[in-house]
Amino acid sequence: MAVNLPPLAELLAVRGVELSASAAGIRYRGRDDLVLLRLAEGTQVSGVFTRNAFCAAPVIVAREHLASATPIRAILINAGNANAGTGAQGLEAARQTCELVAEHADLLPQAVLPLSTGVIGEALPLQPFRQALPALVQALDESGWGRACRAIMTTDTQPKAVSRQLVINGETVTVTGMAKGAGMIRPDMATMLALVATDARLEAGLLDELLAQAVAQSFNAITVDGDTSTNDACLLIATGQAPMAPLQRGSAELQRLAGVLNEVCRELAQACVRDAEGATRFITVTVEGASSVAEAREVAYSVAHSPLVKTAAFAGDPNWGRILAAVGRSRIEALDLSVLDLFLDEVCLIRSGEPDPQYQEAHGAAVAQRSEFEIRIRLGRGAAAVQIWTCDFSYDYVKINAEYRS
Amino acid sequence: MAVNLPPLAELLAVRGVELSASAAGIRYRGRDDLVLLRLAEGTQVSGVFTRNAFCAAPVIVAREHLASATPIRAILINAGNANAGTGAQGLEAARQTCELVAEHADLLPQAVLPLSTGVIGEALPLQPFRQALPALVQALDESGWGRACRAIMTTDTQPKAVSRQLVINGETVTVTGMAKGAGMIRPDMATMLALVATDARLEAGLLDELLAQAVAQSFNAITVDGDTSTNDACLLIATGQAPMAPLQRGSAELQRLAGVLNEVCRELAQACVRDAEGATRFITVTVEGASSVAEAREVAYSVAHSPLVKTAAFAGDPNWGRILAAVGRSRIEALDLSVLDLFLDEVCLIRSGEPDPQYQEAHGAAVAQRSEFEIRIRLGRGAAAVQIWTCDFSYDYVKINAEYRS
Repeated sequence: MAVNLPPLAELLAVRGVELSASAAGIRYRGRDDLVLLRLAEGTQVSGVFTRNAFCAAPVIVAREHLASATPIRAILINAGNANAGTGAQGLEAARQTCELVAEHADLLPQAVLPLSTGVIGEALPLQPFRQALPALVQALDESGWGRACRAIMTTDTQPKAVSRQLVINGETVTVTGMAKGAGMIRPDMATMLALVATDARLEAGLLDELLAQAVAQSFNAITVDGDTSTNDACLLIATGQAPMAPLQRGSAELQRLAGVLNEVCRELAQACVRDAEGATRFITVTVEGASSVAEAREVAYSVAHSPLVKTAAFAGDPNWGRILAAVGRSRIEALDLSVLDLFLDEVCLIRSGEPDPQYQEAHGAAVAQRSEFEIRIRLGRGAAAVQIWTCDFSYDYVKINAEYRS
Repeated sequence: MAVNLPPLAELLAVRGVELSASAAGIRYRGRDDLVLLRLAEGTQVSGVFTRNAFCAAPVIVAREHLASATPIRAILINAGNANAGTGAQGLEAARQTCELVAEHADLLPQAVLPLSTGVIGEALPLQPFRQALPALVQALDESGWGRACRAIMTTDTQPKAVSRQLVINGETVTVTGMAKGAGMIRPDMATMLALVATDARLEAGLLDELLAQAVAQSFNAITVDGDTSTNDACLLIATGQAPMAPLQRGSAELQRLAGVLNEVCRELAQACVRDAEGATRFITVTVEGASSVAEAREVAYSVAHSPLVKTAAFAGDPNWGRILAAVGRSRIEALDLSVLDLFLDEVCLIRSGEPDPQYQEAHGAAVAQRSEFEIRIRLGRGAAAVQIWTCDFSYDYVKINAEYRS
């Protein structure tokens, strides 16, 4: 079902990150749904979370624990139940899961980050956690990524994880990340769940910046349906286990690591769109010539969220009228469409606000029927640009979301 | 297909408004697609138009003509071709249609308002106008409303028109209106096309206010898909042909007329939602307890545009998690969900941010499976409230919009 999402490649261990997964029976039967990560002493963790005011209990607890003085040493992720809309009882349940981990792994509860994904509004049962945790702690292993990335799936049809290595001052550094998410996706800080780990050593205080920069170009640049999830979370983990001097702010080495982190995050974010609910096409929306990045984003999301643009994309219809209508309704001042250009991949449809004299419907249709194409809009107002990724809107999106829960 | 949209009731003539319709063959074969209205001397006309920057040629011309000193004496409406995205040539075509009417009806071109609806991006052929106009002028008649409201349909499955009468100072005054529109609907001044006429006499300078007030509570309070059309237009016509003294600003009589105008506009706007592309349910979204009307609108549209809320509605699923998630992602400051209440019709699902202790899923499902229901959200922040109308998101919405054009 997913659009050009390759099968999982080999996932490389990150020194200092051990993982385990098990079938705890939280909601699903006969598949893994609970993941534990243990992080080596000295690990730095940075997190960004949903900006949705209706955020889930584990997000509240994770924010508290990240803000506390206690270093994070474990992460507990469950699928099948989002523990959202569950009130005071849900908050208590999220805290309890941290206490269970603390007890079995000999940590402080504040050293544990809880993450949940799945159905909203159902109480999180604690019994599956109690039963599963002893064995999970036993099974922790640096080779656990493959099983972990499958265990966090919900409506995902394929697991999403990526590894990269780079050599810094003669030492090989690994970056491995995983993500899940296929619907309720218009991250407003991060996608539903993503976790990227590296064994690089970093000077203190750099991790948040690295994460913010990577997220802006990846998880905050995708949209499936414009619905921001209650549970979005993205964590960046640096264990510092690679035998190297800490990377310094402003150094070329840090730049290279940042480049790889950006790449890993972008690939994971795009994987969420490729595997979006009902998606049949993967669409890049590029807006250039804007007077600011904010304006470029407004136009890009106006196009990427338009149900009419998305259903036309499903039909493989190069319906430029709908694209221009979506650009036209974006909330930007004094938009002049007479200087706008519109391309689908290499084909120019609109030049200076009117159909390009060379344009033929058949050329546009040939692009719109590709499984991946770019909608490129040049506003002619300035030098700012953005690129975001989205998908089409199909019968199956309606089907999946009408049937989920029932 | 439409949700509880009754068959057309009798439409009452408005003194001073003559109408005719014909099958000009602009796009459709064997059905009316061109409508002419002639307005008596002394008629006042007020109009509001799309705020989409990508607005159609007839909208540009209609704005010009309304702003000119020449009183409006005729309105020409075609279906099948929106004359949008057609550049300088389209603008010239819109002007030509006005000249053709002027020539045959002995008026100045600026006395004519052109309105178009239909496919975007195709050149408007003038030959059908040339051929049809002589007979259209001949056929003008005050009883022409029924045929006119059918001739302006595009993807509408039913015609939408309404008549009301009221007695003012012993004299019967008539209000008759018609509208069309079933998709690309999130009016940002007015729906695609609506036209309301009355024979009431009004003091000068009141008509714009009456229209603005009626539109705010009707065409600007509906959404089908969040896509604002390129051709939205709403006209209010007062012929002044009723034998009465002009209604004065602030009078009780003017208030009563305004009440009827509001009612007619609301009924027409709701008819567009009932007949929305693929709609199976008609949903009222009420937001109360907001700190401002703008805030209440932001929340209401966030819910009404959520594809996840709309697909759940299609399934008859009382999925309050998706509603809260949509409320939570609306762009309002310091939203506190712990004071929020949520009702579906008479059933309380969420009280003070948590599932109501009395709530049972079966009660919510009984409401969500009704063909009409209300989502009522109390924010607990202030005294402002709004009400808007929308519909669900079904397979047929995707089907209609994937197939339209192809």
